[in-house]
Amino acid sequence: MRSKVPLLDRVMHYIVQRKGKQMRPMFTLLSARQFGPLSEPAYTAASLVELLHTATLVHDDVVDDSDRRRGFFSINALWKNKVAVLVGDYLLSKGLLLAVDHGQFELLRIVSTAVREMSEGELLQMEKARGLNFDEAVYFDIIRKKTASLIAACCASGAHAGGAAPEQVALMRDFGEQAGIAFQVKDDLFDYGAGKGIGKPTGIDIKEGKLTLPLIHALNQAAPADRQWMVRTVKQASKGKGDVGKLVAKVVELGGIEYARKAMYDHRDQALAILHKLPRTPARDGLEGLLEMTVERTK
Amino acid sequence: MRSKVPLLDRVMHYIVQRKGKQMRPMFTLLSARQFGPLSEPAYTAASLVELLHTATLVHDDVVDDSDRRRGFFSINALWKNKVAVLVGDYLLSKGLLLAVDHGQFELLRIVSTAVREMSEGELLQMEKARGLNFDEAVYFDIIRKKTASLIAACCASGAHAGGAAPEQVALMRDFGEQAGIAFQVKDDLFDYGAGKGIGKPTGIDIKEGKLTLPLIHALNQAAPADRQWMVRTVKQASKGKGDVGKLVAKVVELGGIEYARKAMYDHRDQALAILHKLPRTPARDGLEGLLEMTVERTK
Repeated sequence: MRSKVPLLDRVMHYIVQRKGKQMRPMFTLLSARQFGPLSEPAYTAASLVELLHTATLVHDDVVDDSDRRRGFFSINALWKNKVAVLVGDYLLSKGLLLAVDHGQFELLRIVSTAVREMSEGELLQMEKARGLNFDEAVYFDIIRKKTASLIAACCASGAHAGGAAPEQVALMRDFGEQAGIAFQVKDDLFDYGAGKGIGKPTGIDIKEGKLTLPLIHALNQAAPADRQWMVRTVKQASKGKGDVGKLVAKVVELGGIEYARKAMYDHRDQALAILHKLPRTPARDGLEGLLEMTVERTK
Repeated sequence: MRSKVPLLDRVMHYIVQRKGKQMRPMFTLLSARQFGPLSEPAYTAASLVELLHTATLVHDDVVDDSDRRRGFFSINALWKNKVAVLVGDYLLSKGLLLAVDHGQFELLRIVSTAVREMSEGELLQMEKARGLNFDEAVYFDIIRKKTASLIAACCASGAHAGGAAPEQVALMRDFGEQAGIAFQVKDDLFDYGAGKGIGKPTGIDIKEGKLTLPLIHALNQAAPADRQWMVRTVKQASKGKGDVGKLVAKVVELGGIEYARKAMYDHRDQALAILHKLPRTPARDGLEGLLEMTVERTK
């Protein structure tokens, strides 16, 4: 990954030292292994999805104005937005070149679609947050695009690299989509302190104007007076005002956490049902374990 | 280009209404026409390079914190950085999907390389500006990457789409590179008011810390006392202080404009010499015209 630009090398070094959970390459490699021995196309796909994911994280931190990522300073906090935007573009092009250099056209098709859906999902989220839209179907549409589309792409591209037939690639895509939805609901639960070990502090999503499932459900359950107060507090929170702690408590009181947790397990179960259409192998067991980790992780 | 995200559609509508000079698609289509009749692959390539170019402009305005683009408000000024970063990513992925959907693998190879070089070039420019590096070779390396690489990709992908043999594709790439260098030197001359009709105000590059050829040459020509004052003024300019008008006048006085203009014509001549290795056709005449427009344009 060395370039001829020292600044870029310093940023890349910083990124590589602070790896995440690497769940996306694991989804990719296990999906490949389910259909055949691991070979170069599977490793290319795994590298590409992690590069792509890293690119979107770097851009997300600009989008959200975050100064923290994985417990360390974000790229935009250390080097400013300028560098973060450009490094994100660089990572994206490096990922695509990897597929191009290895002649993996189908991989490019799968991931380009995911890149488009991810940016669409983020834009949809911003728009719906601004309009204070508390529709559950809209929430699921957003997380399907912004998060699940990439995990779906991991499983589909892995399966394709492993030599799966088109209908099996489609099945793995569906598995990844359900797993990805469960993953994002879990992430959104963390913001309400649910099931959390360490990580980002509670209430951040509300302050960033992100309307997630626990809040959406609570709002739709609330009595008119409560609802009015909650909507007002969400509006104030985006301006750094309002009692966010009390809002979080209200969401818990109205059953928002339990409801979202149930939705998460529902999608986990749907993912599992899809997976069980395939023969049991060590790779399938691995995918089950990864799915379990998705919903039981504490960070 | 319609999506399911109303916010995205509004931004896209805004962008499409404010088209630029569309020089990149013209380079692409004329390069294709030199080798054969225009057909779908050439149009795909032309659309892709314009989408890509637009994506980088949207990101550039975030990077440079510009609130103007083509005489109108920039996307980041109207919708904030968040939207601009995501719309840039969306345009990039839409462009790539265009190539994927049309099965144009070689096109993807050519443009992915350009995307990587463009972000490298921008990062290199930032780094060198910070270190106050006034090396002419570094300047040419930066503009070759950040600007000429895409115009080279236009000509190479166009030629490939038109059915050119690999050595002719390479020749057209070299032509595009020289034309692209001339194009950027011309752009940098505008900042010193040279040959300008309307457009961005003088001195912007200096304020943004961009060290371009007129300034670099003037600095390398200046007597020690002048040089010291100039370097100090460049440093102050990035903080919104210092007499930028006087610095521009000094650059003119020291022959910076004339020197850069000569360099621009040198690269134009090199481009022309490459082009003349090909048989004369209406398309070749068109490329010559485009090259002339590159160096003689007033905006």
